[in-house]
Order: sequence, then structure tokens, then C-alpha cells
Amino acid sequence: MVENRIKDPNLRNQGRKKIEWAKRRMQVLNSLKEEFEKLKPFKGTAISASLHVTSETANLMITLKAGGANVYLSPSNPLSTKDDIAASLVYDFDIPVFAIHGEDRESYFKNLEIVASKKPDITLDDGGDLTAFLHNHSLYEHVKGGTEETTTGVIRFRAMEKSNDLKYPIIAVNDSETKHFFDNRYGTGQSTFDGILRATNMLIAGKTVVVAGYGWCGRGIAMRAKGLGANVIVTEVEPVKALEAYMDGYRVMKMDSASQIGDIFITATGCNSVITLEHIKNMKQGAVLANAGHFDVEIEVKELYDKADSVEEIRHGLEKIAIYGKEVFLIAQGRLANLGAAEGHPPEVMDMSFANQALAARYILENHEKLDNRVYILPEHIDREIASLKLKSNDISIDALNDKQVAYLSNWKEGT
Amino acid sequence: MVENRIKDPNLRNQGRKKIEWAKRRMQVLNSLKEEFEKLKPFKGTAISASLHVTSETANLMITLKAGGANVYLSPSNPLSTKDDIAASLVYDFDIPVFAIHGEDRESYFKNLEIVASKKPDITLDDGGDLTAFLHNHSLYEHVKGGTEETTTGVIRFRAMEKSNDLKYPIIAVNDSETKHFFDNRYGTGQSTFDGILRATNMLIAGKTVVVAGYGWCGRGIAMRAKGLGANVIVTEVEPVKALEAYMDGYRVMKMDSASQIGDIFITATGCNSVITLEHIKNMKQGAVLANAGHFDVEIEVKELYDKADSVEEIRHGLEKIAIYGKEVFLIAQGRLANLGAAEGHPPEVMDMSFANQALAARYILENHEKLDNRVYILPEHIDREIASLKLKSNDISIDALNDKQVAYLSNWKEGT
Amino acid sequence: MVENRIKDPNLRNQGRKKIEWAKRRMQVLNSLKEEFEKLKPFKGTAISASLHVTSETANLMITLKAGGANVYLSPSNPLSTKDDIAASLVYDFDIPVFAIHGEDRESYFKNLEIVASKKPDITLDDGGDLTAFLHNHSLYEHVKGGTEETTTGVIRFRAMEKSNDLKYPIIAVNDSETKHFFDNRYGTGQSTFDGILRATNMLIAGKTVVVAGYGWCGRGIAMRAKGLGANVIVTEVEPVKALEAYMDGYRVMKMDSASQIGDIFITATGCNSVITLEHIKNMKQGAVLANAGHFDVEIEVKELYDKADSVEEIRHGLEKIAIYGKEVFLIAQGRLANLGAAEGHPPEVMDMSFANQALAARYILENHEKLDNRVYILPEHIDREIASLKLKSNDISIDALNDKQVAYLSNWKEGT
Amino acid sequence: MVENRIKDPNLRNQGRKKIEWAKRRMQVLNSLKEEFEKLKPFKGTAISASLHVTSETANLMITLKAGGANVYLSPSNPLSTKDDIAASLVYDFDIPVFAIHGEDRESYFKNLEIVASKKPDITLDDGGDLTAFLHNHSLYEHVKGGTEETTTGVIRFRAMEKSNDLKYPIIAVNDSETKHFFDNRYGTGQSTFDGILRATNMLIAGKTVVVAGYGWCGRGIAMRAKGLGANVIVTEVEPVKALEAYMDGYRVMKMDSASQIGDIFITATGCNSVITLEHIKNMKQGAVLANAGHFDVEIEVKELYDKADSVEEIRHGLEKIAIYGKEVFLIAQGRLANLGAAEGHPPEVMDMSFANQALAARYILENHEKLDNRVYILPEHIDREIASLKLKSNDISIDALNDKQVAYLSNWKEGT
Repeated sequence: MVENRIKDPNLRNQGRKKIEWAKRRMQVLNSLKEEFEKLKPFKGTAISASLHVTSETANLMITLKAGGANVYLSPSNPLSTKDDIAASLVYDFDIPVFAIHGEDRESYFKNLEIVASKKPDITLDDGGDLTAFLHNHSLYEHVKGGTEETTTGVIRFRAMEKSNDLKYPIIAVNDSETKHFFDNRYGTGQSTFDGILRATNMLIAGKTVVVAGYGWCGRGIAMRAKGLGANVIVTEVEPVKALEAYMDGYRVMKMDSASQIGDIFITATGCNSVITLEHIKNMKQGAVLANAGHFDVEIEVKELYDKADSVEEIRHGLEKIAIYGKEVFLIAQGRLANLGAAEGHPPEVMDMSFANQALAARYILENHEKLDNRVYILPEHIDREIASLKLKSNDISIDALNDKQVAYLSNWKEGT
Repeated sequence: MVENRIKDPNLRNQGRKKIEWAKRRMQVLNSLKEEFEKLKPFKGTAISASLHVTSETANLMITLKAGGANVYLSPSNPLSTKDDIAASLVYDFDIPVFAIHGEDRESYFKNLEIVASKKPDITLDDGGDLTAFLHNHSLYEHVKGGTEETTTGVIRFRAMEKSNDLKYPIIAVNDSETKHFFDNRYGTGQSTFDGILRATNMLIAGKTVVVAGYGWCGRGIAMRAKGLGANVIVTEVEPVKALEAYMDGYRVMKMDSASQIGDIFITATGCNSVITLEHIKNMKQGAVLANAGHFDVEIEVKELYDKADSVEEIRHGLEKIAIYGKEVFLIAQGRLANLGAAEGHPPEVMDMSFANQALAARYILENHEKLDNRVYILPEHIDREIASLKLKSNDISIDALNDKQVAYLSNWKEGT
Repeated sequence: MVENRIKDPNLRNQGRKKIEWAKRRMQVLNSLKEEFEKLKPFKGTAISASLHVTSETANLMITLKAGGANVYLSPSNPLSTKDDIAASLVYDFDIPVFAIHGEDRESYFKNLEIVASKKPDITLDDGGDLTAFLHNHSLYEHVKGGTEETTTGVIRFRAMEKSNDLKYPIIAVNDSETKHFFDNRYGTGQSTFDGILRATNMLIAGKTVVVAGYGWCGRGIAMRAKGLGANVIVTEVEPVKALEAYMDGYRVMKMDSASQIGDIFITATGCNSVITLEHIKNMKQGAVLANAGHFDVEIEVKELYDKADSVEEIRHGLEKIAIYGKEVFLIAQGRLANLGAAEGHPPEVMDMSFANQALAARYILENHEKLDNRVYILPEHIDREIASLKLKSNDISIDALNDKQVAYLSNWKEGT
Repeated sequence: MVENRIKDPNLRNQGRKKIEWAKRRMQVLNSLKEEFEKLKPFKGTAISASLHVTSETANLMITLKAGGANVYLSPSNPLSTKDDIAASLVYDFDIPVFAIHGEDRESYFKNLEIVASKKPDITLDDGGDLTAFLHNHSLYEHVKGGTEETTTGVIRFRAMEKSNDLKYPIIAVNDSETKHFFDNRYGTGQSTFDGILRATNMLIAGKTVVVAGYGWCGRGIAMRAKGLGANVIVTEVEPVKALEAYMDGYRVMKMDSASQIGDIFITATGCNSVITLEHIKNMKQGAVLANAGHFDVEIEVKELYDKADSVEEIRHGLEKIAIYGKEVFLIAQGRLANLGAAEGHPPEVMDMSFANQALAARYILENHEKLDNRVYILPEHIDREIASLKLKSNDISIDALNDKQVAYLSNWKEGT
């Protein structure tokens, strides 16, 4: 696969309108763009990114470019690239994009290779594939630092840190409060169901929805499932999270049990083999399977395709799979349901996630000499600043501590 | 416009798969189909329908045909026809469809005329356009009775009943409990947001959503808005409903006030001019407008287009309208958001609504001689039977009163 | 039992303050009182009531007295009388009360007999005991009509109507929308849990709460159980209601199944033997039982006490009952949990219920000659008026239909 | 004030039954008690505690005593002592209690002095008054370490740590996940409304409830307010939390604005002067004020009493305060509403909080020589162990990672 140069003017036009629509809802990023245009903090810097090619990502790329960066965009997932967005980025914004929707594994890694070879100063990652590629191929020499967007990727980089394999510092954008509190919860929660509805047009009310994982993504999904009228079951491996799910009014059980009663299954764990063939064997006729985690390993998709009697795409993003004498229905081939069957997170939450990405990139440039090859979190004041900008863009004013209150909070002597 | 004979095999194939997918989720209708196939209750009967041409309607048509009817399908709304479904109905199921997506007003009424001229024994209506057409053109001679699917249509027919203009009996399918408790509430609630999300990909969490009307549709919409994290405002004209909305935790106010603070506006009233140009003048930059009522008169769409400085479609089903020095965004041209921007109600609720339609059609055949030219509701036992079948199809068993309980309930003497 | 003349000034003082506190929150009733004081519609009329002796009922009695009535108050339930309220009514407001908290069955019926013998023009009933007493003892000669507050009582009177045993017209106050939509749902929902919390101080979050009955009371209880974090199961005998419960996200099953998994059981059916000894045998160690229906027959309380190995009151309103080798915990002896363990409905909802009572009493006086011995509902305009007053008292303004809209709604010809 | 030796046998009996009822719901603590009885980890140790004297605290004291400790109990708040519990602890369990309900400030500090003078090895604190007393009076010589239960206290101790005033290590029990995720959220949420309902019997549905603070307590309160049908407004000083509240669907604004529209105000900030006289001046006639934070400084109570035209207790735990030409209603004198007007947190959550207290006490004994005079959090494995025990006591089984999954999670190389 080479650079995405789809010359269809309609596609490009459609993409541009979508990018503009998203821009309206990304006001924190817009204010950073204004600042970057003046200060050019990325002047002369190469930034290689592996991100879902969506209208929100487009706005991040445009923002970084406005700050003086040379940016190169590769995909984060073969199914998540929106070709109309890619076309507009290339033709309207002169930003090279190396990604095409539905590409195969070979093309996907070829694209990573292209952006990896640009001698980036900074890498932006979503899932960690680009950073892993640079490490696996010893292409990290010029890299001052990288960022990571997801829980999944952060788990990967912490493993690298632990085994001393990390060759440059990583900013875990995911771990900023203005990222995972919002993107993972409100973003994943809504967009996963957006994907499920586009793929199936099913009624959610009354359905038994099994959510695997009660991290920030999982609780967002469970919250929206409940909000749409479902009866929710949660599976977990962490006892504290399991207990929270229980006290939030959900049933909590092992997947062995849940697999027998669920109508819809959604994985959000960052782990593999959460739904196995054995679980699928347990399931009711007609069960629907979706994944909201970064990689397509949470449901045993490969094993499922191998073992299936037949596989047929019956609606966009929905396959009917005959197996074990019944049919189950798989959304977006077990890849991210929100990106494979809908448009990914709404711009309002990506606004904060990508403000973190942009500020993390600047933070790396300014601080890389002081950083070790470890996983870092952005300083708290940046989080607070992003949240303040977001509140302001929604016309919300909040209280501030006055002197009397500050004094009270630092005075331990007063009490009853 | 003539019969919908789109010869694209892909379209037809896609339509057939969607019809089959919907069929899986319409088990009450399936059980009626089995019965009709045996008993042929509609043998020799002509049934003309004006219904949204969706995969669920397809299953109703197939069911009636299986019962021996000659069925003719015209649209219920210019934007709600799904061409893939129409293609499959025509080619796979040999059911004539006179509707095409996006047709103009002239074509729409031409199509009504075609099915009206088939000398129908029974009319099936959604909104009342077909019945009104038959009455306006004195084509009701052969008609034994008709049905009506919506609140809007029932309001119309009650007005006709009141002014003695009704020429044949109408079964208000809408007023069956298994219809409006479910379709209007869970169906409209979910599918309206499905339409809004497909058209906008906006984050709902945090948004101020103004719902006009707190009937069954309005409360379904408000419930789902809340379930998606919105802050909901309700406007109403009926004090009892307004009070319910207030006690359900929503803010209740006049549209004059709500129009100044809403981010998203959704009408579900069955009335016209609920959102006027004056209200739009009050709105914030970027407000989003959607309608969930049957006709495109709830928002003053015509006036809006006339007065607008510019109108541009920026995403599928989303127009940017420049007016009063700002921009507002209109979904599906002010027509039904769920059908114009998504696929309408999920099959699970249409199952019950259309079981009511099918049983109403049979009821008309069996009882028309005893019926006056009035608006009727199906007998309660039919409602209960549909609900029982639906519970059964979801493997739910419920309690039954035993003799001791029946005796208690009919004995007024016992007390404290 | 004679008139409640508890001479403790503290009790009386406490009662008076509670009556005043409730009065603040009953603004519809207050506005009726003002009107009644001027017009004296009940001048010379005797009104006998069997109502829960609470601060809200006190305000109703005071209102009727202000309108010129001679009022006599007897209990509606042996456990629901608040002695402080009774003391204040007698001494501060000169209203005779024949009720005392915790009285036995004999005293209870003696008290009914006293007020029945006052030759009432009108009876006000809650559960139907007073009306049944008048009928059983042929004391109905002077009665122009009566009212009934509850679903339970209305079921009784419809049985009487059906068997032609009804000797005077009954206004089913319960069936006014401003009554059962609010009192039964928001009132019972909140106050039942208020009773459970006062009796147990249990955490509701995470508990499996089984709600028997999904009428207006049951759905209020289920809604609040969910709102407090419970996992809710509903049992029903009506398929349509069962289906609503299912689509509201609750599990629906037979009590035979639910009895094995519930932590807390709440009955709200108006029927007897909903929870039987057999069900109790199925229950887990430590199950908690509460009733929200009018009579103490929904749980088989008598059978439970008879069969128990031991019964011990361990907290106010909570008994530990050893049976079948385990312990279950019964709230308020199986009588109304909200009145037996807390204070009954909040004044805000009783405001509307009792405005209906007051207006029903006036309606009987004004219309009794036109009424048959049947069960009636108050005219819709009264409902609407009460709702409007309630909205006004909460500073809520709502829209009104304009002429253009009225014309649209009555014009069936216009459509697409 | 001397040791609480209320000799009323009824009181003692009632207290004992409540302690036993709570014990049933505190199964994690029960399992620790069994272990402690065998191992006697506290043999010869003196433990002085300043805790709310409730049935749950009683079970903690009994558990520590079973482990060999000499325990001494003083109050944590003048209004939170339950005299029946105190009586039972003294007479049934031989545990000295120095606390009496409603005591004055002098008595309160006298009681702290008594337990402070017992030369404790360990202090258990709730709010930090005991630890502050020991520090202020240089009585910390023998102390190996202390614990702290609340956010408020932890803020105090971190201030001490920062100014180098801390004289022994503190375990911030509050900061254990099994504490603040549960006690602060589900416990405070439910029990605060339990207090408000017992004090007022108000309907919550439809009310505008203003929650000050969106920490764990505040979000629990907001969640339950919503669950009871309220319309919720949140005030905050932290932008990230404010943004979460906004995306959770609540209105977010300054207290200056909220004070004008709220019906009920609840503070949960750990800070002082959150609701000032100026705010009260803004409020509507009849506003209700409650505090859920540890100290009675969140609402300016002293200033309110000083400035008031009159103060009258009109119900238990509810004062009518005439000021600024209107009346506001204050719950529990601005002290903790859940403890002042109800019974504090339910035992199910205190089970985990006090399991943390008990294990923190043991941790101090075993590790104090390695600890600095700083604020510590218990190791994560203790948290997980407590959660696992709690799940087990509710018969909940959860999944565990298998080897394949553990390998996947530690392998950064695999990806798309």
C-alpha cells in the first residue's frame, strides 16, 4: 500500500465537510491550534503517527502541522481508516496519509514501515504498533519520545519498561484524567453502541448484555447499556472492580455462566481470549458478539473463523457465523466495534484526548533530555488546564477556593 | 413514479438479507405467519398499505401475503423508503412496491393513488395519508375497514370521526398497549438517537436535550437522552404530562425559555409549529434540530428553508443552515429522524406493532359488518395474546392467578 | 377503643409541627382550603373517613372542615396511625379522631363503627373497609356517595359494582391521573424504601430486589430500587405489564424462581398470597420481606407467624422469624412498609391525592342525584386543574396550543 | 463527661440487637474476627479510637478485642453517638465507651482526653480529632501508628505531613479502594438521603438538589439524588471533576447561581464556608440545607445561628430558621446528616471500611519500625483480599487470568 491518494473529488469533499464538522466540536484543540500557529513549537520536527484515520485525528494532524511539524499518518487498525477523511487530508491539507480502509495485514505493516522510516522526532501511537515496529526494527535512534493513546498500548509499554526494552520515553496520554475519564468512558460507551446499532438495528431494551471488563471503557459500556434499557452482566478478573460492578446494580459472574444467558457480548479488557470457542459453544442461538478493546484478540476470532461451518456478511459490519449447530453474529470482524461499524469516538471527547496528544508532543520536545526511557504521565496542571478550557468552551463557570478556604485546608489543628 | 423496480442485484440481495435479519427478531409475526399460511384468512382480499418501506414492513407484507392477500405497498414518507428492501420485496417476494427513496411530493401522491386504485378491502396506514387520499377522492367504496399505526394518524381520524367524515371503520393499532407502550417508547426512544448519532456522531453526554412533547414517544426519547448522559428539558401543553416530566427529574419550561439553552431539540408532539422561526432565532450557535413526529411540520421547516441565508448538506442526513447570523443543523430535513437518518424502529418492537396490524386486518374482515364508521381499539385479549407470545419468544414465564387469588379479587367483603 | 384523646402536650405539639410542615408542601390543597373557607361547600355535611392518620390526612380533614363539614376520622390500618398527629387534630383543630397506633382488630372495627354511625353524607375510604362496613351493616341510607383512595379499594368496589352490591356511587380517586400517576409511583416508590431503610439500615446497592406487581406502585418501587443501586426482578400476572418490566431492563420470572435468589422482596399487587410459605421455604437465609399493598395478605403473614419457630422484634418495625431452619426478616408485620416503618407518602404527592379527595367530595354533593350506584372517575378537567395548580406552585410555566395549532389538530385533510 | 454507663436495660438490649443485626451484614469483619481470635495479633496492645458510636463501630471494637487488644472508644462527633449501642458495648461486651449523644464541646474533648491518656499503641481516627489532640498535647510518645477513616482527616494529616508536624505514621484507610470507592460513594449516597428523609419526609422526585463537591461522596450523593428522581446541580472547584459532573448529565455552575434555584443543598467537600450566609440570602423560601462532610463548617452554621431571627426544631433533626425574611430548614445542625438524622452508613459498606481499619492496625504493629512519620496507603494486595472476601460473602465468583492471558499481557511484541 502506498500513500492514500484516492482521487475521487466527492470523497474528498465529503471528508473535508466531516473534518470541519468535527472541528466545531473540538474547541480545546482549536485553541491549541491558535497558539501553535503563533509559536510554531514543532518547527522542523518530524512526527510519525499511527492513529485511527478519522475526522478527529485529521484535526490533530492539522493542529500539529499548524505548529510547524512535518506529520506522517499511518493506520492504527485496518478497519478504522475512513477513506473520505484520508482523501481530504491529502488533497485539502497536504498531509501524507498511508492507510486505506480494509487493507490487509501486509499493507498495514508496510504503511507502518513508511512512517517509521521518516526519522521521526516524535511518535504518536494508538495501541502501540508503531512504537513496537520502531523497536523491533531498531529505528528509534532519532526519536525523542512517543505518546500512547490507549489502555492496551500502555499495558504494552509498561511491559517493555519492566523488561528494560523501552528505548525512548513514552507519555501515557491514556492515563491523563482528561483522557481516560472521558474518552474511555463516555466515548467508548456511546460509540460502541453506535456501532452495534448501525450494524444490527437491534432493540437494546430488555436484552441481556454481557460486558467483559469493568475498567473505564467497560463501565462506560455498561452505563450506556443500562441507559438503553438492557439488563447488564459484568465479568471481571479484578475483585475490586467486580465489587464496584455488583454495587452498581449489575450481575457479576464468570464468563462460563454469562455465556449461557447473554444476548449481546461486548469485550473491553485489553486482554486476549476473553470469549473463547468454549464460551461460544455455550451461547444461545443468535448471540451477538462485539469487541471494544484495541486488538481483535479479545474474542477468539481466528479460531471462530477456522471452526465455522460458514461465514456470511449479512449487513455492513455484521457477519452470520454458523457454528456448533447454531448461528452467532459478529460485529466488525471482532475489531473495534465503534470504529469498524461506526465512526469511533465523538469529537467532543477526542478533543480532550488529542489536546493531551498535542501537549504531550510539545512536552517531549521541551523535556526529553530530562526524561528516562520510561512511561510517564503528563503533569497534573496540564490535565487541569485542558479541563478548564473544555468547561469554558461549554460556558460553564465553576467556583474557586478563596483564601479562607485555602487556609482551612492547610490547617490541621482545627476540627470539631 | 411507477412501481419500484430497481434491478440492481446487489441491492436486492442486500435487501433480502436485511429482511431475513429482521425476521429473526419478529417472532410474534412469525407465529402469525405460520397460522395464516394454514388458514388463509385473507384469501381473495386486496390490502393497500401506506407504510415506511423497511425490513420490518417487508415482513408484515410477506405475512399478509402468506395469508392469501394481494398486497400493494406505497410509501408513508418520501425519506423513509429503503430501496434495497423495495427491490427485494419486488423481486424475491413478488410484492408490488410503489415507492422510492427521496421521491418528491408529486411522486409520493402518485404512488398513493396507485395503491388507492387497487379497490382495497382493507387499508393499512401510517400517518393517515392513504386513508385521507381515499376519502378526498371518494375511493372508499370497497373498503371494509382500515388500520392506523401512529398517534398522529389517530388524531387525524378522531377529527374525521368527530366531523362525521369517516367513511369506514378504523382500528387504531397505535392505541393497543402492545403497540404504543413499546413501539412509541422503546422504539422511538432508541431509533431517534440512532438517527441523531448516524447524522452527527455527536457526544450526547452533557448536552442539554430539549424534548417537545411527553407522550409515549417523548418519554421514550427523554429516557434514552438521559440514558446517554444528557441533561433533559421537556416542553408540554398538557399539565398532567408536564408534571410527570417534572417528577421524572427533568426541567419543564416553555419552548420560549428552552430554545435559549438547548443544544439538541427533538419534537414528538403530533402537532405543528412546535419549534418556530422565533424559537430558532433564540437558539445558540450550532443548535441541532430533529423531529420524531410523523409529519415534517413540528419544526417550521418550510419557513426555515425560505428564510435561510444558505443550506448545505454536510453529512448524510445533516444540513447546515445559516440563518440569523448563526448556523443551526437540521436532521433529515425535519422528517422523522429515525427513518430519515437511520433505519426506523428495531424489529423487536415492530414485531408487536405489526402483529397488531395483521390481527387488526383479520379483525376487520371478521367484524366489519358490526362496526360503525368510527375509530376502534382492538379487544384487550388480543393485546394480551400478543404480549404473551412476545414473552414466550424471550423464554420468559410469568405467574398466573390461582383460584384462591381469583376468589379474593372478586370478594369485596374481606378487608383488614 | 374510644376517641383518641392522648393528653400528652409534647405529643400534641410535635403533631402540630408536623402538620404545619406537611402543609407547606401541599399547596394545591392549601388553595382549595382558601376557596372552601369562602364558599363553605360542605356546610352541614357529615363526612366520615377511614384514612391513614398522618400529617397529610390531617391537612385534608382541616380543609374539609374549613369548607363547613363535620368530619370524623377513623383508621385505615392498625399500624398507620400516628398518635402525635391524632393528638394535635383533636386538641388543636377540634377534629374527632377514633384511632390509635397499634390497636387490635376489635378496636379497629369498633372505630369504623363509630364513624359509620355518624350518618355521613359522604364517606372517604382508603382500602374500602369503611364502605364495606357500611354495606355489611346496612348503614348506607344517608350516604350520597363515597370516595376511594387505592387500587386495592377500587378493585373491591368494582367487584361490588359487578355483583350489584354497591349501594351508593363511588368516586375512584385512585383512578385520577393526578393521583395514581404520582402518589402510587413517586410516593410509594420513595416511601417504601424509606420504610425499609428505617427498619433495617441495609445497603440497597447490589441487592437483588424482587418486586411483585408492575402496576403504578410496583413500577415506582422498581424505579427507586434501581435508583438506589439494586438489581431488580419483577413478577407479574399480566403479560403486557410483564413485557414492560422486561423492556425496562428488569429480569422477569415466576415467584417460584425469584424466591430462590432475592435478597429483599416487596409486594405491590392488591392480591393475596403473592408470597406463600412455599416461596419462603425457597428463600435464602436472611431474606427481607416487605409489603407495599394495602392489606397484609400479600405475604402470607398469618401462616408465617403460625408456622414460625420463633418471632422476635429486633429493630423498630423489623421482626426476625425463625422458620425452615433459617431466618427471614419481616417489615411492619407485613402491613404497608411505608406507613408501618416510616411516615407514608410525602406530602407533595398526597397534596394531589387529597385535592382529588376534596374535589371528589364536592363533586358528590353537587352531582349525586345524577349518579348511579357505580364506580366513577372524576372528570378530566379536574385532573388537569389539579396538575396546573401543582405546576404553578412549583413555578413552572408550560406552553399552550395557539389557534393555528388547534386548527391543525382538528384538520384531518392536511398530511405529507 | 465520664464513661457512658447508661443503665437502662431496654436501651442496652436494643443496642445489642442492633449490633447483632449489623454483624450479620459484616462478613469480611466476621472472618477477620475468627482469625484474630486464634492468632491474638493485638495481645497486650492498647487501641484508642475516636469513631462514630454506631452498631458497625461496635463490631470493629469487638473484633479488635477478640484479637487481644484493650480498646477505648471516644466519639467522633457529638451528634453521632447512639446511646443504645454505647450501653450494649459497655455492659454486654465490656468495652469502655466515653461518649454520649448530644454532648457539648467540652464533654466531647474531655472524652478525647480520656482515651488519649490510655497510652495507646495505636489510634483509630475518623476526622482526625483524636490524632490532633495527641499531637496538640504531646501525648504521642507511645503511639506506633494511627489510622484515618475519612477524606477530611486525610487532608488534615497530609497538611501535617507537609509541615513536618506528624509524629507517627498514619494509614489512610480512606484511600484504600475498598474504602472510598464503596463507603464514600454507596454508603454516603444512600445514608445522606436516609437522613434527609427521616428528618423531612419530603418528596425528592422533581426537586432541584444542589450537591457541593463531586468527589467520591459527592458523586454518591448525586447518583442517589438522581435515582430518587431529583434534578441535580453540582458545584466544584476542580475542573476535571466539574467536567465529569457535566458529562454525567448534571448541571454544573457556581454556588452563587445554584443557590438561587436549589430546593435542597448538600455539601460534601471537606472544606469550609461552601454555603455562606450570602448564598443563603440568595435562596428560595423553604430551602433545605444538609451537610455530608465530616465537620459542621461546610455550611456556615455558626454564622447562620447568630444571624437568625429565630430557630425552632420542628421535627427530629430538622430546624426551621427564620432569616432574611424567609425560612430555611437545617438538617442535624449542619453536622453529618446521615449520622445526625439517621444511623450512618449501612453495615455492608462499613464492613469493608472497618476491615481496612482492623488490617491497618495489624499492619502498624507489624511494620511500624519500617515506617516514617508519613501518610501511607495499605498495600494493594490487602485491598484485593478484602474485595475477594466481600465477593465471596455474596456468593459471587469471578474469572481469573489463565497462563495464556498472563503471557499475552506481559508480551509487548504482539499487536495487530
